[in-house]
Amino acid sequence: MTRFNQPLGGNDMPRFGGPATMMRLPSQDSAEGLDACFVGIPMDIGTSNRPGTRLGPRQIRDESRMLRPYNMATRAAPFDSLQVADIGDVPINTFDLKKSVDIITDHYRDILSHGTIPLTLGGDHTLTWPILRAIKEKHGPVALIHIDAHADINDEMFGEKVAHGCPFRRAWEDGCLQNDKVFQIGLRGTGYAPEDFDWGRDKGWTVVQAEECWHRSLVPLMEQVRDTIGDAPVYLSYDIDSLDPAFAPGTGTVEPGGLTTWQALEIVRGCAGLNLVGADLVEVSPPYDATGNTALIAANLLFEMLCVLPGVSHA
Amino acid sequence: MTRFNQPLGGNDMPRFGGPATMMRLPSQDSAEGLDACFVGIPMDIGTSNRPGTRLGPRQIRDESRMLRPYNMATRAAPFDSLQVADIGDVPINTFDLKKSVDIITDHYRDILSHGTIPLTLGGDHTLTWPILRAIKEKHGPVALIHIDAHADINDEMFGEKVAHGCPFRRAWEDGCLQNDKVFQIGLRGTGYAPEDFDWGRDKGWTVVQAEECWHRSLVPLMEQVRDTIGDAPVYLSYDIDSLDPAFAPGTGTVEPGGLTTWQALEIVRGCAGLNLVGADLVEVSPPYDATGNTALIAANLLFEMLCVLPGVSHA
Amino acid sequence: MTRFNQPLGGNDMPRFGGPATMMRLPSQDSAEGLDACFVGIPMDIGTSNRPGTRLGPRQIRDESRMLRPYNMATRAAPFDSLQVADIGDVPINTFDLKKSVDIITDHYRDILSHGTIPLTLGGDHTLTWPILRAIKEKHGPVALIHIDAHADINDEMFGEKVAHGCPFRRAWEDGCLQNDKVFQIGLRGTGYAPEDFDWGRDKGWTVVQAEECWHRSLVPLMEQVRDTIGDAPVYLSYDIDSLDPAFAPGTGTVEPGGLTTWQALEIVRGCAGLNLVGADLVEVSPPYDATGNTALIAANLLFEMLCVLPGVSHA
Amino acid sequence: MTRFNQPLGGNDMPRFGGPATMMRLPSQDSAEGLDACFVGIPMDIGTSNRPGTRLGPRQIRDESRMLRPYNMATRAAPFDSLQVADIGDVPINTFDLKKSVDIITDHYRDILSHGTIPLTLGGDHTLTWPILRAIKEKHGPVALIHIDAHADINDEMFGEKVAHGCPFRRAWEDGCLQNDKVFQIGLRGTGYAPEDFDWGRDKGWTVVQAEECWHRSLVPLMEQVRDTIGDAPVYLSYDIDSLDPAFAPGTGTVEPGGLTTWQALEIVRGCAGLNLVGADLVEVSPPYDATGNTALIAANLLFEMLCVLPGVSHA
Amino acid sequence: MTRFNQPLGGNDMPRFGGPATMMRLPSQDSAEGLDACFVGIPMDIGTSNRPGTRLGPRQIRDESRMLRPYNMATRAAPFDSLQVADIGDVPINTFDLKKSVDIITDHYRDILSHGTIPLTLGGDHTLTWPILRAIKEKHGPVALIHIDAHADINDEMFGEKVAHGCPFRRAWEDGCLQNDKVFQIGLRGTGYAPEDFDWGRDKGWTVVQAEECWHRSLVPLMEQVRDTIGDAPVYLSYDIDSLDPAFAPGTGTVEPGGLTTWQALEIVRGCAGLNLVGADLVEVSPPYDATGNTALIAANLLFEMLCVLPGVSHA
Amino acid sequence: MTRFNQPLGGNDMPRFGGPATMMRLPSQDSAEGLDACFVGIPMDIGTSNRPGTRLGPRQIRDESRMLRPYNMATRAAPFDSLQVADIGDVPINTFDLKKSVDIITDHYRDILSHGTIPLTLGGDHTLTWPILRAIKEKHGPVALIHIDAHADINDEMFGEKVAHGCPFRRAWEDGCLQNDKVFQIGLRGTGYAPEDFDWGRDKGWTVVQAEECWHRSLVPLMEQVRDTIGDAPVYLSYDIDSLDPAFAPGTGTVEPGGLTTWQALEIVRGCAGLNLVGADLVEVSPPYDATGNTALIAANLLFEMLCVLPGVSHA
Repeated sequence: MTRFNQPLGGNDMPRFGGPATMMRLPSQDSAEGLDACFVGIPMDIGTSNRPGTRLGPRQIRDESRMLRPYNMATRAAPFDSLQVADIGDVPINTFDLKKSVDIITDHYRDILSHGTIPLTLGGDHTLTWPILRAIKEKHGPVALIHIDAHADINDEMFGEKVAHGCPFRRAWEDGCLQNDKVFQIGLRGTGYAPEDFDWGRDKGWTVVQAEECWHRSLVPLMEQVRDTIGDAPVYLSYDIDSLDPAFAPGTGTVEPGGLTTWQALEIVRGCAGLNLVGADLVEVSPPYDATGNTALIAANLLFEMLCVLPGVSHA
Repeated sequence: MTRFNQPLGGNDMPRFGGPATMMRLPSQDSAEGLDACFVGIPMDIGTSNRPGTRLGPRQIRDESRMLRPYNMATRAAPFDSLQVADIGDVPINTFDLKKSVDIITDHYRDILSHGTIPLTLGGDHTLTWPILRAIKEKHGPVALIHIDAHADINDEMFGEKVAHGCPFRRAWEDGCLQNDKVFQIGLRGTGYAPEDFDWGRDKGWTVVQAEECWHRSLVPLMEQVRDTIGDAPVYLSYDIDSLDPAFAPGTGTVEPGGLTTWQALEIVRGCAGLNLVGADLVEVSPPYDATGNTALIAANLLFEMLCVLPGVSHA
Repeated sequence: MTRFNQPLGGNDMPRFGGPATMMRLPSQDSAEGLDACFVGIPMDIGTSNRPGTRLGPRQIRDESRMLRPYNMATRAAPFDSLQVADIGDVPINTFDLKKSVDIITDHYRDILSHGTIPLTLGGDHTLTWPILRAIKEKHGPVALIHIDAHADINDEMFGEKVAHGCPFRRAWEDGCLQNDKVFQIGLRGTGYAPEDFDWGRDKGWTVVQAEECWHRSLVPLMEQVRDTIGDAPVYLSYDIDSLDPAFAPGTGTVEPGGLTTWQALEIVRGCAGLNLVGADLVEVSPPYDATGNTALIAANLLFEMLCVLPGVSHA
Repeated sequence: MTRFNQPLGGNDMPRFGGPATMMRLPSQDSAEGLDACFVGIPMDIGTSNRPGTRLGPRQIRDESRMLRPYNMATRAAPFDSLQVADIGDVPINTFDLKKSVDIITDHYRDILSHGTIPLTLGGDHTLTWPILRAIKEKHGPVALIHIDAHADINDEMFGEKVAHGCPFRRAWEDGCLQNDKVFQIGLRGTGYAPEDFDWGRDKGWTVVQAEECWHRSLVPLMEQVRDTIGDAPVYLSYDIDSLDPAFAPGTGTVEPGGLTTWQALEIVRGCAGLNLVGADLVEVSPPYDATGNTALIAANLLFEMLCVLPGVSHA
Repeated sequence: MTRFNQPLGGNDMPRFGGPATMMRLPSQDSAEGLDACFVGIPMDIGTSNRPGTRLGPRQIRDESRMLRPYNMATRAAPFDSLQVADIGDVPINTFDLKKSVDIITDHYRDILSHGTIPLTLGGDHTLTWPILRAIKEKHGPVALIHIDAHADINDEMFGEKVAHGCPFRRAWEDGCLQNDKVFQIGLRGTGYAPEDFDWGRDKGWTVVQAEECWHRSLVPLMEQVRDTIGDAPVYLSYDIDSLDPAFAPGTGTVEPGGLTTWQALEIVRGCAGLNLVGADLVEVSPPYDATGNTALIAANLLFEMLCVLPGVSHA
Repeated sequence: MTRFNQPLGGNDMPRFGGPATMMRLPSQDSAEGLDACFVGIPMDIGTSNRPGTRLGPRQIRDESRMLRPYNMATRAAPFDSLQVADIGDVPINTFDLKKSVDIITDHYRDILSHGTIPLTLGGDHTLTWPILRAIKEKHGPVALIHIDAHADINDEMFGEKVAHGCPFRRAWEDGCLQNDKVFQIGLRGTGYAPEDFDWGRDKGWTVVQAEECWHRSLVPLMEQVRDTIGDAPVYLSYDIDSLDPAFAPGTGTVEPGGLTTWQALEIVRGCAGLNLVGADLVEVSPPYDATGNTALIAANLLFEMLCVLPGVSHA
């Protein structure tokens, strides 16, 4: 009927059967021929509190099984105009975090060589740094929309430069970012120093603490984001712990007082029109997600990311 | 002290003891002599994703044990003026969905013959269609307030006409509805076609998507609902998945970005003054409700439904 | 290195990544070219108590991820001599049990047409009847080794002929069985009549109640089984509820006093040398399997079944 | 068909529906007219470690829903010759343990006045003392079969005489026991003094530590028990923590190395022929029983107790 | 580096190791030398529905392990100017509630004798009454900010004066409160009489029902609270069930329609500038808190309480 | 009363309160002055399948709270003759496994310098190698009793020499072991090669596969172990996954068909009389241990290890 891959529908196979790929899409080994791909990074050795994100990609895929092809709110129809598939997981070295980050950069260099936009299923947040290194090689420094409870700009954790609290410090050091076009949204909680969130501000980043988001729509904020970023290439990094634990209990470094799923949807949908060159959804920890609903929300947000990629048609 | 049945109080029996009936009310086999009744339909063979709603009635009753007789927000005192009991479960055929819908219609025909208003503990949403068939025989076509994440107006699922995604299509075909007085509230998520929610609109129904509800009180919406419905007989069908999964994790076809319990309470309380002829609370799935809190919310909403029935006194 | 499919190893991809197929084997759409296949039947609408077996195939596959290619107890090396793949799920009609059984028979007729031995991931026990119908077409009446807490020989359940308590009654009626070569092992619990387990005995079946298995090895019993069956074609149907709930908590119709995993392994390993033409592992219910360990045991037993198929080499 | 109450069958109402009474039997307010009754004591304020047994009676009843009327191992047919019902719960005072024990004694005095044998659904083990006080008034001192991980003969806990670790000390002080006919089976673990288990031995009791039960059938032990007790009136007190936590995880003071369900069934079935005047099943803690299987085992053991009451017929 | 105790940092010991004290602070046996202390009361025998709060202090401490020393929203730096430690638990008598309340009063009398402000980890709400008795001896009648779903002003429960539904009635009787400076916030649900919440109003208390809080910031309310209380000594009692169960599922007497964590943070932060003489966080029930997130929220709120104590410096 | 540290008793503080140290013993920073110590290693970055053992030490300590000072089976009285304390956790580097193993060796070198016997709470099995390195420096090569489902003698995992599947290969390379006095008990499951368990045999080790343990007491095996080891210094390494998952569900690389807790107790008690110089209990994964019972069993086994140390008195 169409020349594009389609998710396996519920009238062809019950939702609780069929392949456990993202949205029950076809799988393939490389990104060749794809406009966008879903790719998993099963990693949690960069986490500092609760573990479990290594199982995130598998559970997100499993809980993506209810997703239908059309977005009822935005009328986006990604499978009418993009070729999309699930290209499986990055074979990280689970016993060595430093080697794993190099494996990731290599893997994304290959994905990007096909002109494919990667949508990543994490995995702990360490992974964004090696992805951004590959992105920079392809696109140069990029704008960044970073949604998170934490700034993740520590210089070191326990003396280490590579950890899930450091990726944006490393990316900044590597010149991956357009500093006047970096947004951090949802930050909150406790810190090692009261100035922790000011580090980015000093670099020119816009930091929106969670308290500024309470009790309101984030549609106006996203207008500001779009105005600032314009047509620069932009990377979206979505840490599920940006959500209040009421909405996303299944994660490792929980901070109360966070965003809502309504705001999360406003943020991702608010990226429509931007020149997205990649996105990730990180820090889903299935052992702390008894119902699977945190993974399900992650799957929905990844679908919403797909819906705002350049070139998506609307019905 | 009163001639009406009263819930068993916590000063007579600890809350964690006593009969596991709805609100620890007396039980009886038929609706005879009752103004309103609680009735369960232990069914999940109409579900298309996660199962478990077969256990909904038992768990809702169990978690209703904390409910006291007076509504502290509205000062409704249902047990001061109505005779209410728990009349047990409908003996559906759990191996045959099509036979079960006929069993349900027969059962409600009998309840309605006593002039009793049924408040139903589901069970999957398939059950609303056979109830509406019986309601139509008694009251003619009715207004409908349908709270849900999904429109449930599929023509078929996997080639079948009877499934939990089809009840309102079937009810419409059977002429059960006053189409200018149908409200669908909370719809969202993904669809098989971008027009899925427009089917009802084409019939004259009012469809309020979840996005229209975000960040606001639904008191004004319910004023509009009441104005439109006037004194027509009205049926209230409340699918617990209308709530965001943060509030109601224990259900089968979860969609993020939903309603809040504050809004749910505004909706049900906003039905006061309407000519309610029946109501249901469906899709609670205990295996996905580790704490029992989804069932507890369902029990509260059923009590709130009782509080807005015609004839309830206020203290 | 070999011409046969191999499970994806842990040194190529972390165990918690890679495709969620059985044992992380390659998948293909049909059984063509296969000596044996894993196939799922995501069904629970035949269950009479707790639901959830619809999710069994997905969870068994997920928890099969630790399985390595060699059997350390028996030195069986199935992937050294057999071509094996995961051929996905049977697209049952989840809203109509009677239609589903015909879909299953058709599906297995096709599998068997390729000369492939099917190893089935259930799914509720209703499925064994339609499989046996297809088996009979291919092989004629077969011997049966049926491990279960229940006899599953009810004439009807709630007036229905098709349900998870009836498959062996139906198979007997259809002439699928060699009655002098039928073994039921592990039966126990309560019954509708004290004679419930005698029905099979009256047909010539050997019924070994659980009490006869307590505190002992089942190696001698399996010798007797092998002696009786000889070289007749034999089908193995393993209901996970045969195990005591200590060992397999995640199932729907639990009966205490059951078998151990040691005995389960003795039973399956005791099938070595028989002419197995098919096998199933049924009734794993993931919502009642919080750790995933019941699914993991099921995955192990399915691997053990593979290890005793005709033609498996040993190292 | 029969003049005796029957459990509601699965062909009349799905197992997951119907009244949440024990075995879905009829309920009545008093023991009048009954040969035996099930009665709950929703109490946990006597527990010293994990709480939750207050919810035991409700969950045992819920999980008893699969029980059919006949015992397939022993062919006992209790509902063919005894009138049995569920008489609900004892209204203990959950804020005052000392008052609660008096409430219990009063309640059982009334049950026994009807000549009814009480089968108690606990609740924490404190309850056995007040029951034995009432039993003594009716029957004089009784033999005791006490299955437990703990001796429960502390003189005091935290300076208190009433607690779940003291009931048999209190019962001994009150002259409730025939000391040469007391058996304690399953004791193990750690103690405040190495002589803890010798206290009973000094009184003439037979104490069988768990280690003596490992790797063997308890049929011979029960022969010895029956020989010693003869036709004396006997009370059976079954603490679910006697079972190894593999079999019964849902309890509060867990000790590894315990009995199996096979042994538990041998013990209860081994009481056939004794002059049982009452029995209890205590210490099921639903919050620690995620699957419900511990409650299910308890329900089965209570049914087995019913099956060995004097006057039960066999089919 | 500093003369004040500091929480053990994540760069000295992984977050999931180290002592399980509150915030991994040093522990000491008494309050001597402390400006503020964390103290636990492991009690649940005053609860009327679900148990489990006895385990609250242990779980709150465990989940406090991620807390860093600085408040990123308010820039409070409590460990720069106050000496704080964890002084362990009050040895309540878990078999006698009435004795326990006297043990608590004695224990707090000692804490207060050192001029230390106690921050209490509950435990059920019964505990606030005995604390207030000790507070009154030290400070005279105090203002009260009471956040809760329930008024907790019952005269009796099951005929008892001491229970978790009665503490503020008892405190009022004992003259512990400045009645014109008492605020109850978050009340909702069902009641034994429609006037239940008016009892406090009749005494001069300000009662803010949950409905008044929906859809809005509570910053204005807290301004009013501060204006009314002025510099009177004030006690803050925070019942976690004031939060909607979406945010705090792990508690015993759940009422839907409650506060959010955003509002909870606004309330506690809104106490800055008041003369706080003590505070508690009660009713966390770990058995109903599968992820630990309710305890984690409680730990955060206790840290926020510490941040608004008199004398806290800001960075 | 005694000059030795005692566990905090339940009559001084409720079991669910008090310090969350092992057995509620006093804690101290170093091993100075101790005959034996409990020490935690909160690590899981060496695991190859499910994570979570990083939380093992905290949960084992929490669930050790019921342990009383005397062993009722063996009458061992460790606190009558040994000075024992909990010395907290090793500050491993959770982002670098290779650095962590050196941290561990250093830490144990210090413990052993005080003449203290370390009893280790794991943590993943990688930790045994660095402990054995320190043990060798102190005691020379040692005998080894290794209880496990796996041989853990891989040369590499994913190309790495340090991982939880390699510790005994590394220890052998480092000359830590007396090869004629090495016992591996409980091995089973699947392997990368049929010869995997023969590697140790080739070195002179005794390998007892799980199948050899089924259905029997291990008392005779332990007699053989003691005869072989004689008075050589011996290290005991107990992997909780040696137990069948029925007994210990909360671990990461589960293999069905394992040991029982009865056998586990026989093994540890069977070490009495040996010259134990250290022991560990590894691989408890709390996220997969919903009830806490796996941690509780681990705590019991650690207490049993303490009971068989040289110098323990008996009462």
